[in-house]
Order: sequence, then C-alpha cells, then structure tokens
Amino acid sequence: MNYEKYIISVASRARKAALELAVISTAKKNKALKQMAEDISKNKKHIQRANEKDLISGRKKKLSEALLDRLTLTDQRINDMCDGLRQIACLKDPVGQCINQWKTPHGLLIQKVKVPIGVIAIIYESRPNVTADSSALCVKSGNVVILRGGSEAIHSNMMIADILSASCKKAGLPTDTIQLIKYTDRALMKPLLVQNESIDLVIPRGGEGLIRFVTENSTIPVIKHYNGICHVYVDKNADITMAKNIIVNAKTQRPGVCNAIETVLVHKDIAQKCLQVIADALREKDVEIRGDMRVRKVVKGVKPVTAKDWDTEYLDLILSVGIVNNINDAIAHINTHGSKHSDTIVTKNKKAAQEFLSKVDSSAVFHNASTRFNDGGQFGFGAEIGISTDKIHARGPMGLNELTTYKYLVMGNGQIRS
Amino acid sequence: MNYEKYIISVASRARKAALELAVISTAKKNKALKQMAEDISKNKKHIQRANEKDLISGRKKKLSEALLDRLTLTDQRINDMCDGLRQIACLKDPVGQCINQWKTPHGLLIQKVKVPIGVIAIIYESRPNVTADSSALCVKSGNVVILRGGSEAIHSNMMIADILSASCKKAGLPTDTIQLIKYTDRALMKPLLVQNESIDLVIPRGGEGLIRFVTENSTIPVIKHYNGICHVYVDKNADITMAKNIIVNAKTQRPGVCNAIETVLVHKDIAQKCLQVIADALREKDVEIRGDMRVRKVVKGVKPVTAKDWDTEYLDLILSVGIVNNINDAIAHINTHGSKHSDTIVTKNKKAAQEFLSKVDSSAVFHNASTRFNDGGQFGFGAEIGISTDKIHARGPMGLNELTTYKYLVMGNGQIRS
Repeated sequence: MNYEKYIISVASRARKAALELAVISTAKKNKALKQMAEDISKNKKHIQRANEKDLISGRKKKLSEALLDRLTLTDQRINDMCDGLRQIACLKDPVGQCINQWKTPHGLLIQKVKVPIGVIAIIYESRPNVTADSSALCVKSGNVVILRGGSEAIHSNMMIADILSASCKKAGLPTDTIQLIKYTDRALMKPLLVQNESIDLVIPRGGEGLIRFVTENSTIPVIKHYNGICHVYVDKNADITMAKNIIVNAKTQRPGVCNAIETVLVHKDIAQKCLQVIADALREKDVEIRGDMRVRKVVKGVKPVTAKDWDTEYLDLILSVGIVNNINDAIAHINTHGSKHSDTIVTKNKKAAQEFLSKVDSSAVFHNASTRFNDGGQFGFGAEIGISTDKIHARGPMGLNELTTYKYLVMGNGQIRS
Repeated sequence: MNYEKYIISVASRARKAALELAVISTAKKNKALKQMAEDISKNKKHIQRANEKDLISGRKKKLSEALLDRLTLTDQRINDMCDGLRQIACLKDPVGQCINQWKTPHGLLIQKVKVPIGVIAIIYESRPNVTADSSALCVKSGNVVILRGGSEAIHSNMMIADILSASCKKAGLPTDTIQLIKYTDRALMKPLLVQNESIDLVIPRGGEGLIRFVTENSTIPVIKHYNGICHVYVDKNADITMAKNIIVNAKTQRPGVCNAIETVLVHKDIAQKCLQVIADALREKDVEIRGDMRVRKVVKGVKPVTAKDWDTEYLDLILSVGIVNNINDAIAHINTHGSKHSDTIVTKNKKAAQEFLSKVDSSAVFHNASTRFNDGGQFGFGAEIGISTDKIHARGPMGLNELTTYKYLVMGNGQIRS
C-alpha cells in the first residue's frame, strides 16, 4: 500500500468537496443530517455486527473492561447517536452570519461573515460514536471532514462512516464530504499531517502520545483537545459546605473526563475548619487523598503528595490536596501546574473572586461552581466537537461557531487606493 | 554559546512576564507606549549610528539597493515610528471587553471576555521599524513579545528593542515585556520553535524559505503572514474604465506588497473590447504583460504566460493575463492558483458579484474595488501586525483584536452538575 498516494488522493478530493459544501444551503445540510439519523437507525444490526468484530479483537488484545465497555455500541448508544444527529440538524447554522459590517471613509461597505474552515481532519482514539458526532458537526458547519479513528474501533468506524457518506450523497451533498481513513498504522499519519495545501485544520483528541505525535509532525494548524489538570481553590472566606459539595462533584461525578478536578488548594486560615469535612466526604466516595505536609497534620491517614502528582491528570478517584498561604500562591500554583482548562474559586469575598477570575489563565474560570460545567452542552452550544486546550482560534468548548472562520466581503463602486 | 539554554531562559522569563502584563491597566500600557515614542525620538542619533553599522555590513554583503533603502532609518522614518507608537496608544484596548454574556438554566452567569494570547514570538526579515510596530501592538494588547529579526538589521533592531524595553520598565511594565533574540543563526530558531510550554503563538513574516522553516519546525501554533497571489476578474458586464483603473491601481500603486495583484482574468465576451485598453494603460506604467494564447490574439507583443506564472507572486511590474469562458472558470482558477488573500470582481451584475463573493475562498473578496484595500489601516483597525494568510484564529489584517483570545468567566452560587 502506498500510503502517501492514498492520503494525497483523500486530501485532494476533500479540498474539492469543501469548495462545493461551503456554499450549500442550510436546508440541504439539515436534510442530510436527518437522513444520517434515519440510515444509522435502519442499519443498527449492521453496525452492531461490525462492532462485534472490534469487540472480539479487543478481547483478544486483552483490552481493559472499561475500554471494552466504551467500545460497545448497545441499542441505547446507537439511539443516542441518532438523537445527536437530529439535534444538530435543529441547531442554528453559523455559516453566512454577518459578524460585523461598516462603511469606510472611501465608501467601501465591509462585511465580516462567518464561513466554514474548509477541510478538517479529526484524529481520535475513543468511542465509535465520535465518528457520527464529529461528522455531523462538520457537515452542519459546512466543513468537509477526514476522520482517522483508532484501530480498536476500525470496523465500527468504517461501517458508520460508510452509512453517513451514503446519506450525504442521497441528500445531494458532495460525495467526499465524509471520508474515513481505512488504515490505522501510525506511519500513515505522517503523510496526512503535511497536506497543508488541502487540509485546513487538524483536531487531535486523545492522550499524550497522540497529541505529541500530531503536534510534532503537523505542518497543518492544530487545535489540541488535550488534558485537564483542573483545580478547586478554597479561599479563607469560603462557605465550607459549598466547597465540599463542589469538590465532591468536580472529582467524583465523572472522574474520567477532562473537566474533573485533580487538585484542591486550601487557604491556611480555613484549613483546620474545612479539611476534615472535605476529606470525610471524599472518602465516602472512595477517593484517595494525597496531601502535602500541612494537610497531613490536619487529616489523619493521608498519603504524601509527590512533586509529580501536581502535574498529573489522574482521570481516577485520586486527588492531590495542598495548603497555600494566600490567594496569590494558589493562582501561581494553578498557572504553573494546571493545563489552562477549568479552575474554580470558592469564596464569599467578591474581590478575591474577581482577582482569581482575572489572573487564572484558563479557558474557563469559575466562582462558586463545579468545573464540570466547562462543556459545550452545559454552555448552551448544543453540541461540541470537544474542549480545546489551545489558546488560538478556539478555547474551551468547540461548537458549531468555533468550527467556522470568517472572510471579509468588500463592496465598492470603483474605489482605488491613492 | 548554548543556544538552547539561552532560548529557554528567554521563553520562561517571557511566560512569567505575560502573567503580570495580562492584568495591567490600559492607562499603564498607554503610558509605556508614549514613553517609547519619547525615548525613540530622543535616541534618534543612537539608532542611526546602529543603523549605519547594518548599512555598512549590508554594502559589504552587496545587498540590493532596494534592500539597503528599506533598511535605512532616515529622520522621517524614525519620526513615523514614533507617530505609530503614539497612534497605538490612542487605540481602544480590547483586553477585558465582554464579547457575550448569558445565563444558563442552572443560573450560572457566563461571560466571554477578551484576554491577551500571552507570549507571542514574531519572526521577521524586513525593515527595522517592524521591531517598534510589533512591540507596540503586542504591549497594547497585553502580550509579551519575543522578537527575532533578520541578521541584516541586527544592530538597528537591538538598539530599538533596548530602548523600548527600558521605556517599558520606566512605565512600570514587567522587565521582560519585550525581548529581542540577539543571535540570528537559523540554528537558534529550532529550540525557539519548540518552546510550546512558554510561547503561545509564532507569527512569521517573510518569504517562502522562512515560512516553510517555521511551519516545519514549530510545535507552537503558527499564524503565517505569507504571500499574496491576488486576482482581478473582469466579468462580461464590467465597466471597462473602472476595470482598467482598478487593475492599474492594484498592480502598480505599490507592486512589492502582498495585496497587489499578479493575475487578471477576463471574460471571453468582453475581451475584445477591454484587453487593448487595459494593456495600453499598464504599458504606460511599464508593466510587462504575460498572456495566454487567446490574450495574445487580441493584444500584440505580449509574452506567453507559463504554467508556473499562474502560481507566482511577482512582487514586481509583471502581470499574468488570461481569458476565461465564464465566471465559474474564473472562480475555479482563483481557488486553485490564488493564495486565499485578496481577489476582486469587476461587474455591473449584482448576481455575478454575489456568486464571486461567496465562492472565492479568500480572506477578503472585493466587488468593484482595488485589492490594495485589504489592509488593517484601510479597514479601520488603526494598525496591523500584518496580514494573515491562514484561516485559523485570524484571517486578513491582524490588528489589536486579532492579537487577543478569550476566556469564559463563570459565576455561580454553589452549582454542581447532576
């Protein structure tokens, strides 16, 4: 197999399709999305048969039960996939929206309008439903998508992509609107990541290995969907019950996601009063606490936290806890060890809240609320392709709007520059 | 010299300064900008002595007269630099502006506010005034800047950067707000381009060699300021005088810039009537015309255009001219051979204009106006760091607004996710 030739063919067909798709009506795109939902639903059995192949080879490869569970496409999950597609059909189309318009002193009318980005490559390792979600968000925002899923889900992904691609064709969208890369060798990623003439954006979603590989090898712009080392800071004027509830929620409601917390920092003046309460509540949920020296003086039976712990995304029922002397030390800790994702201050003091909100350099900074709300659905975006951990173009939840760029339309009557 | 150690020190000091600068008041930033203008003006003689060193070594290296001219810092150019700094002090500060705010069903108040990007590395090859312009735009938008200019202007750049850096300190900004890399070996760029922990964005401004090197070696997000292969399309319903004026302006008013045109496409039905008129006007301005077969049948003495010409940014008084059968062929040509920069249709037909505006995939698409207007100053942005040829984050002119990103501030009263 000549990977380079294959990739060049995929990318150049995508570029061609992108120019067509960019100017297709909202009605036609919505028709395609509803068709997708119908076709996925109708082909449930085919999808599950393909999924069974992935599960069999996953068991052979001794994947963990958690991973096998995430891989499994139950009836419910396929129904959810269809609901997701229909919901995206109902969202407002950002393409063509005028962001701003003005007249220049020369009499030129300038309109800044939202347009699709063009061709987006999505590289992911996770559940096969990402194939449907990502395709739908791209189609709705007028973007052609090249999907590259993980080897563990290749049969499910191929089946889903084939069905969606046929739905697009039926609804009158370009044939190459959705393409899935059929080979999962990492060797194939290198030629993909240098197609900057044809591909406008790469979105990698996954663990450190994948993100690093993409960042180091891509000449195409990349928006990373990477890790979340998120914090709760309990200020000296915090409501202790509120702090406890927020910490328990942010750690345990879904520990395996990026907006769950990994670290709690507590102001020294409130530590005596609140640490035991918080520790008891966490232990009730089976959370292992790792504390610094001062924490271990207040709470019995806490493991020592290591330097490495502060920089670790556990994605598990483990929490690092430290005591800080003041809010500035908390902010400095977060800006040094955090991943610029989601961080919360719990305090009754408005000035302290203001300081934390302005100085913490993260995509979403919270006052008296759980970090778990940093999510496209919770923000009201309807659906998201993921949560960007980059600062360029899109920060935090990436919905339909964040999948567009803009261009300037300039209307004159013969103006020349002097 | 241990380049890597030096670069890591520069980058980590920049990151530290960025956290401070991000929350400094507009008044303080403006004070620094005015101080910069004053100090540049006061040190004119020092700057010119440093500049003389560059000119002497430039003459030794046999740089072209055009390049030496661009390198020269005359009294007028230094005054212009100071005026530029004062103008940027007068522009509106985007930092802290609320883009949007809303309440969620949970009662969370979400504010999306503009914040600085952080640390920006600007890599440029051109005139030493870029050192002052770029620094000022970064300071005003709250960004710390790492400058890496070309070897031909190193003495001028170092002197200007030293003065600006001292002005920042005097006005109370962090010491490392402006840093210039003192070494110009390309070997030093590689360690710079992998400091993605400390540098948030790289903006390369220059020729193909520089842009390619940065794109291939950077693990930091890049916004390219690259080439302009811009077009005028003369539709069958064009006003011929208007077409002629726009073409002459867009080609000859300043041929060495990215928003000048390189190609004219003419609809076959109007070619007989307009080509000779346009050719005569261009020849009066010493423009060399390279035409396709059909053009050369209409206009005498035209050189043949080659396949390579259509993809060439001449930056000179040379123009490729072709005849197309219809508007769709013109659009397809532009989307294939253009650089997504600036393209114009000249037509009296509104429907044709609409089609061109929506289908041409460029940062600015014009109707009946010169491409030379794709410029931050002309758009009313006040000043620009350059013109982005990328689609991610910023397209076209990058002013203060485009040098910011955003974050979400989320205010609650104890909300947790269920």
